[in-house]
Amino acid sequence: MKDKICVTVWNEYRHEKRNPKIAEIYPGGIHGAIAKYLSTLPGIEVRTATLDEPEHGLTDEVLKNTDVLIWWGHLHHGEVHDQVINKVHRRILDGMGLIALHSSLGSKIFRRLMGTSCGARWREMDERQRVWVVSPGHPIVEGLGAYFEIPHCEMYGEFFDIPQPDELVFISWYQGGEVFRSGCCFQRGRGKIFYFQPGHETLPIYHQKEVLLVIGNAARWAAPISGLDKVERVSHVPEPIERIIVEE
Amino acid sequence: MKDKICVTVWNEYRHEKRNPKIAEIYPGGIHGAIAKYLSTLPGIEVRTATLDEPEHGLTDEVLKNTDVLIWWGHLHHGEVHDQVINKVHRRILDGMGLIALHSSLGSKIFRRLMGTSCGARWREMDERQRVWVVSPGHPIVEGLGAYFEIPHCEMYGEFFDIPQPDELVFISWYQGGEVFRSGCCFQRGRGKIFYFQPGHETLPIYHQKEVLLVIGNAARWAAPISGLDKVERVSHVPEPIERIIVEE
Amino acid sequence: MKDKICVTVWNEYRHEKRNPKIAEIYPGGIHGAIAKYLSTLPGIEVRTATLDEPEHGLTDEVLKNTDVLIWWGHLHHGEVHDQVINKVHRRILDGMGLIALHSSLGSKIFRRLMGTSCGARWREMDERQRVWVVSPGHPIVEGLGAYFEIPHCEMYGEFFDIPQPDELVFISWYQGGEVFRSGCCFQRGRGKIFYFQPGHETLPIYHQKEVLLVIGNAARWAAPISGLDKVERVSHVPEPIERIIVEE
Amino acid sequence: MKDKICVTVWNEYRHEKRNPKIAEIYPGGIHGAIAKYLSTLPGIEVRTATLDEPEHGLTDEVLKNTDVLIWWGHLHHGEVHDQVINKVHRRILDGMGLIALHSSLGSKIFRRLMGTSCGARWREMDERQRVWVVSPGHPIVEGLGAYFEIPHCEMYGEFFDIPQPDELVFISWYQGGEVFRSGCCFQRGRGKIFYFQPGHETLPIYHQKEVLLVIGNAARWAAPISGLDKVERVSHVPEPIERIIVEE
Repeated sequence: MKDKICVTVWNEYRHEKRNPKIAEIYPGGIHGAIAKYLSTLPGIEVRTATLDEPEHGLTDEVLKNTDVLIWWGHLHHGEVHDQVINKVHRRILDGMGLIALHSSLGSKIFRRLMGTSCGARWREMDERQRVWVVSPGHPIVEGLGAYFEIPHCEMYGEFFDIPQPDELVFISWYQGGEVFRSGCCFQRGRGKIFYFQPGHETLPIYHQKEVLLVIGNAARWAAPISGLDKVERVSHVPEPIERIIVEE
Repeated sequence: MKDKICVTVWNEYRHEKRNPKIAEIYPGGIHGAIAKYLSTLPGIEVRTATLDEPEHGLTDEVLKNTDVLIWWGHLHHGEVHDQVINKVHRRILDGMGLIALHSSLGSKIFRRLMGTSCGARWREMDERQRVWVVSPGHPIVEGLGAYFEIPHCEMYGEFFDIPQPDELVFISWYQGGEVFRSGCCFQRGRGKIFYFQPGHETLPIYHQKEVLLVIGNAARWAAPISGLDKVERVSHVPEPIERIIVEE
Repeated sequence: MKDKICVTVWNEYRHEKRNPKIAEIYPGGIHGAIAKYLSTLPGIEVRTATLDEPEHGLTDEVLKNTDVLIWWGHLHHGEVHDQVINKVHRRILDGMGLIALHSSLGSKIFRRLMGTSCGARWREMDERQRVWVVSPGHPIVEGLGAYFEIPHCEMYGEFFDIPQPDELVFISWYQGGEVFRSGCCFQRGRGKIFYFQPGHETLPIYHQKEVLLVIGNAARWAAPISGLDKVERVSHVPEPIERIIVEE
Repeated sequence: MKDKICVTVWNEYRHEKRNPKIAEIYPGGIHGAIAKYLSTLPGIEVRTATLDEPEHGLTDEVLKNTDVLIWWGHLHHGEVHDQVINKVHRRILDGMGLIALHSSLGSKIFRRLMGTSCGARWREMDERQRVWVVSPGHPIVEGLGAYFEIPHCEMYGEFFDIPQPDELVFISWYQGGEVFRSGCCFQRGRGKIFYFQPGHETLPIYHQKEVLLVIGNAARWAAPISGLDKVERVSHVPEPIERIIVEE
């Protein structure tokens, strides 16, 4: 594992600028709240990038120096340019980790990686959510107990149209009667992907310590290994065989 | 399960028309050889569709009446229109099965569903391939022994850039020294997908009985169940909760 | 697939004989209620077996003629003889299906197959349970909607100490705040195993139509394929190699 | 993750003492060769334990202080006492990692954890083995290329009767025509398990640098996280519900 993990936190960063209630909860943006926490962790180096920057802040230089990309998309998925998505996608297959937060289930990059609609039920009633650990030995749950609670949440419910996760880490219970696979690990190419449901722009969920703990753990888990740089497509022949003539 | 499974076998159907050697092996096209076999099986109804037909032969009417789509794509993946792919993709998520054969790992529809590059090593030396069963209780291997051999093949080798299959059914051994995950089951949305490596346009692999047996088994396995027609996105609230006012 | 599936429903069949309240709900035993339903399904032939019969009703003859074994164990797991468990275990690895119901998570056979403690939280408060479908294309959910409800249940909650299921089909929501992986598919050897949480001896859950529907679907899904009879342990050498002398 | 990982390398340590050819290759025992390598790695502390020590060297004190147990069993699986296996099993479910090497697929502890026969084909002809990476982003392959070769090996071939691995990392090719899932990750309880096929007592495989690299990587991967100490079996009720009276 690398000594230092370079994390880029990406955010649309629109509603924080337009809606005073959201700005009050996340004065530096959702990306700012997450970056601030991550910068307190040893071995992690953080930067941020946002939709309205040139190339959405995801230049070749930034991507090349990003080990783990954290993504918050919500209302403006369609505005992210396909050429940026193509590069991010390629970089993930080459090893960069991705942490997709909450409404980012609808983002271009997450849907591209999953191959499915990624649709789910949803409801805003500020109800209670209880996030249960179903993989207690997993690095992403280090430091948690059997479950943690989010006092007020936005509900996402099953059926969640994703491929079966390679590792299912969290299942949420909602006061209104639904369940949700809320912590899902996927491997795609050489990259590790973690989808994490908790979060909402009008609720202080990204200030809650368990939620931040999970995001930090996930950043370490998703960091790439060193190794193969590219998959070779045409190979030498490892074993000595002669070309066999097939009689027509 | 449905009483009758409607299978559509799709083929580019180009090289059979241009190359006399290929035409000799597959006079009715690769799709024809597969369709001919399937039509001998009870409970299966077969039709075919090809690239050069209007809408590539995959009209709304055809898709609506297809339970399982078998796909042979090779040199003309890029010519398949995105609007057709979009419909096929949607229909698979809604329950239609897909069997992707050999070079169809590079097809738009398979790559869309996988979310990865689907790249692999490859080599044409007409070498020997031995296909080992690694899931001996799976419906797709019904009727097979511990392995079967393909006397002359085109080699595809690891690393195969796909998501880890939900069920891995076959692993191939090649004379030249490679291995390949050659029978891979995936569930995406409500649809079942089977990737099957054996096949080549200049070799009579789709006349070999074990290969046809597997394709027939896979067609039965991939057939949709009846049930949910659409995933509901916004739900009623199953449990009586009141909206909670969060004080800012 | 076989034309006729032979199902044996096994039950401790003790509390139904001792407790009048249980006898009132299940006058013919829990096994009787399930067998009665299954016998109405085409292509399924049912018999029953119970703890207090010789060899617990699971003689070599019965096992040999059983395609799918349904198991209800509760308070007397320890009384099932190891030699019977050994035979059942061997038969499952050779292809017999197993459906383990509710408290059978603690049975010798289920724990033997899982390799883990199979422990879980539990509570009896006759609360409401809502069983959500998380694999809507799976044969086991055929005929169900997005979820079904059990008005009064015994709660089992996470962490459920099982290996990650090969396919996760149901997740339950409980009124008291827990979640549970309630429908879990496993492949072990050539055998298919389905764990299904719903059920309780003092509640009429095995008279509920959705629960019975699932058990019937699972019986069909778990039925063995024909094929390999035994795994060969020592093989001939498929490829011509000569023994290489390694110089010490 | 813990700062220091305590690894115990366990070996039958019988054939090295009886067979001069084996002693020449592994003068300090197979455990000695592996322990020597691991002791060169930062952050790993190694001890060894063998069959003929009291309690097979696996006392409560040793187990309590072991993060990862590496196991070499071969001809004397049956001599390992069940009470020791029970403790090792419990400790793995509580979080200790296990690396099972080569013939340890037949060991009591591995079979207990898998729940299957763990049988496979095998052959001794000192043939060539090529170990292909099929999960190139996995921490266990860090430092490897697309494959590595073992010049002379003992062959183990499919069908390998294990549960489908949670993550499949290596597939081997053999000169004699077989394939084998040679690097398999499993999660059981809170413990991580890695089965690694390469090895043989009469061949210097545990002196080969790629093999040792993998064992070292696996030790780091399998180390437990801190966290939940025991799974609670009976819970308080997280949500306020009243006991519902069901009218009989």
